[in-house]
Amino acid sequence: MIRVLITGGTFDKEYDELHGRLYFKDTHLPEMLRLGRCRVPVEVETVMLMDSLNMTDADRQRIAACCRNSPQSRIVITHGTDTMVETAAVIAAAVPDKTVVLTGAMVPYAFGSSDGLFNLGSAISFVQSLPHGVYLAMNGTHFEWHNVRKNRETGVFEEI
Amino acid sequence: MIRVLITGGTFDKEYDELHGRLYFKDTHLPEMLRLGRCRVPVEVETVMLMDSLNMTDADRQRIAACCRNSPQSRIVITHGTDTMVETAAVIAAAVPDKTVVLTGAMVPYAFGSSDGLFNLGSAISFVQSLPHGVYLAMNGTHFEWHNVRKNRETGVFEEI
Amino acid sequence: MIRVLITGGTFDKEYDELHGRLYFKDTHLPEMLRLGRCRVPVEVETVMLMDSLNMTDADRQRIAACCRNSPQSRIVITHGTDTMVETAAVIAAAVPDKTVVLTGAMVPYAFGSSDGLFNLGSAISFVQSLPHGVYLAMNGTHFEWHNVRKNRETGVFEEI
Amino acid sequence: MIRVLITGGTFDKEYDELHGRLYFKDTHLPEMLRLGRCRVPVEVETVMLMDSLNMTDADRQRIAACCRNSPQSRIVITHGTDTMVETAAVIAAAVPDKTVVLTGAMVPYAFGSSDGLFNLGSAISFVQSLPHGVYLAMNGTHFEWHNVRKNRETGVFEEI
Repeated sequence: MIRVLITGGTFDKEYDELHGRLYFKDTHLPEMLRLGRCRVPVEVETVMLMDSLNMTDADRQRIAACCRNSPQSRIVITHGTDTMVETAAVIAAAVPDKTVVLTGAMVPYAFGSSDGLFNLGSAISFVQSLPHGVYLAMNGTHFEWHNVRKNRETGVFEEI
Repeated sequence: MIRVLITGGTFDKEYDELHGRLYFKDTHLPEMLRLGRCRVPVEVETVMLMDSLNMTDADRQRIAACCRNSPQSRIVITHGTDTMVETAAVIAAAVPDKTVVLTGAMVPYAFGSSDGLFNLGSAISFVQSLPHGVYLAMNGTHFEWHNVRKNRETGVFEEI
Repeated sequence: MIRVLITGGTFDKEYDELHGRLYFKDTHLPEMLRLGRCRVPVEVETVMLMDSLNMTDADRQRIAACCRNSPQSRIVITHGTDTMVETAAVIAAAVPDKTVVLTGAMVPYAFGSSDGLFNLGSAISFVQSLPHGVYLAMNGTHFEWHNVRKNRETGVFEEI
Repeated sequence: MIRVLITGGTFDKEYDELHGRLYFKDTHLPEMLRLGRCRVPVEVETVMLMDSLNMTDADRQRIAACCRNSPQSRIVITHGTDTMVETAAVIAAAVPDKTVVLTGAMVPYAFGSSDGLFNLGSAISFVQSLPHGVYLAMNGTHFEWHNVRKNRETGVFEEI
């Protein structure tokens, strides 16, 4: 059984057609898992739905607490890419004995996000096959939390 | 560096609008990897483009030979789901010292296949994290080649 | 109020993922009208769901009877493209006092058919603005029923 | 021959994946016409690419001048929905002898806009079948310019 914690980010942004802007309504994770024909037992928990640029340290502590309190030891977190590395560091300090994989998307799922589905398949797989630790799964690869940054010019995650 | 061998299957079927039927033209793998923002170095080789129901033993031997001859020891194979297990067995007998992951899709990528992108992300991830052996990556999980079958009623892969 | 008669054709074909072939299940017309934000009052009637290559003269007579019996004088018919012209001729002989517009698609709606949505918008518009008669709406234009054929090489409708 | 004037609006908005916001890059009209298999001769001219909430009177005069100077007497204009009615009024005062149809979308084409394709098919059809005048084609119907408003609560165009 895998726990999936939803925190928002590009993954779950939608287009508000009345006001012409992006916003959060609900998570698309259950729909994405269904369309991906995922048969791994998964428990989805929406912790928050926010842009990761707006996350405070209290938000990150809350996410870490959800990891600590999770009865499952394999946890996937969907998260905005901008501060994914910062949240991973907070979790790493608080959760030593689980496999936690953070993932995200460059394009909202609702806009035909190919990278969201690709990354979700990747995160669900790495969380089953990696030893305890905190990782990012982006761009088809996994990074250890202390060894990665998002390149703001290219939008790509890379080893430090 | 990962080698991706293309053999056809639902993944790469397209709609022929002049004749109203499904057919193969080219593989969509490079496009899928690009849209998935995959940054893992990948070398794509089209071995064949066929429905796996039509594969002969000679076809499977040819796929196994491509695995054996591959300079890369991590290999993903896209394959029709109907005889994926049979091909995996042929590869297992011929390729003892590599990590080979077969994957496929229930819906063609050209028809908005969510499971194709999800499975591709999954296969690319498992091939990097699993020890030598031959596996199937479907439905968000991985199976050892000798321990899986496709349930023809439900379209789902399951442990024997 | 416009009546929409569903007869099948590429418009409504779906992908059967268990058997890897195309088939009919239900019409997508109500969903297409909803996604197109169509606000014209429309009454949708499914007459049949079939490939137009399999239509018999009795089928065409049945479609013509539905036109004749329709309380609405503005009628859109979704129809396979292969014998759309033949059905139009049967309707023209039987329905002198209504505006009937046949339309279709080259790619199934379920496969992201751009031409289905485009043609539906076109047919709904022509049926409101053309005088009594039987027309085909394809490729952004309208044709009078006796003045058109489908070019089998190119898949395009053209004036005779 | 139909002239299509591009002015921007939701139709052509794209997702900027580096900054997580909506923006304009290029018009999608040629691609939409190609996917819609439109065979009507069309000349596309990009006049501007802007959100219609930011349009000034000078912008509207410029659009009207493009209509007046167009060698074609049948003109489709893609336009943001928020001030489409205002622009239509400016055109109506300046262009008495042509058929001008303004259309738009509630969802960007790049986000799988079904209403953009539907409305484009509708506008291309109405512009061929309506007499001289200035119209809006939205929601499957056409409105005369002086007889319509956008309902801001529902996003739907309606007769006054």
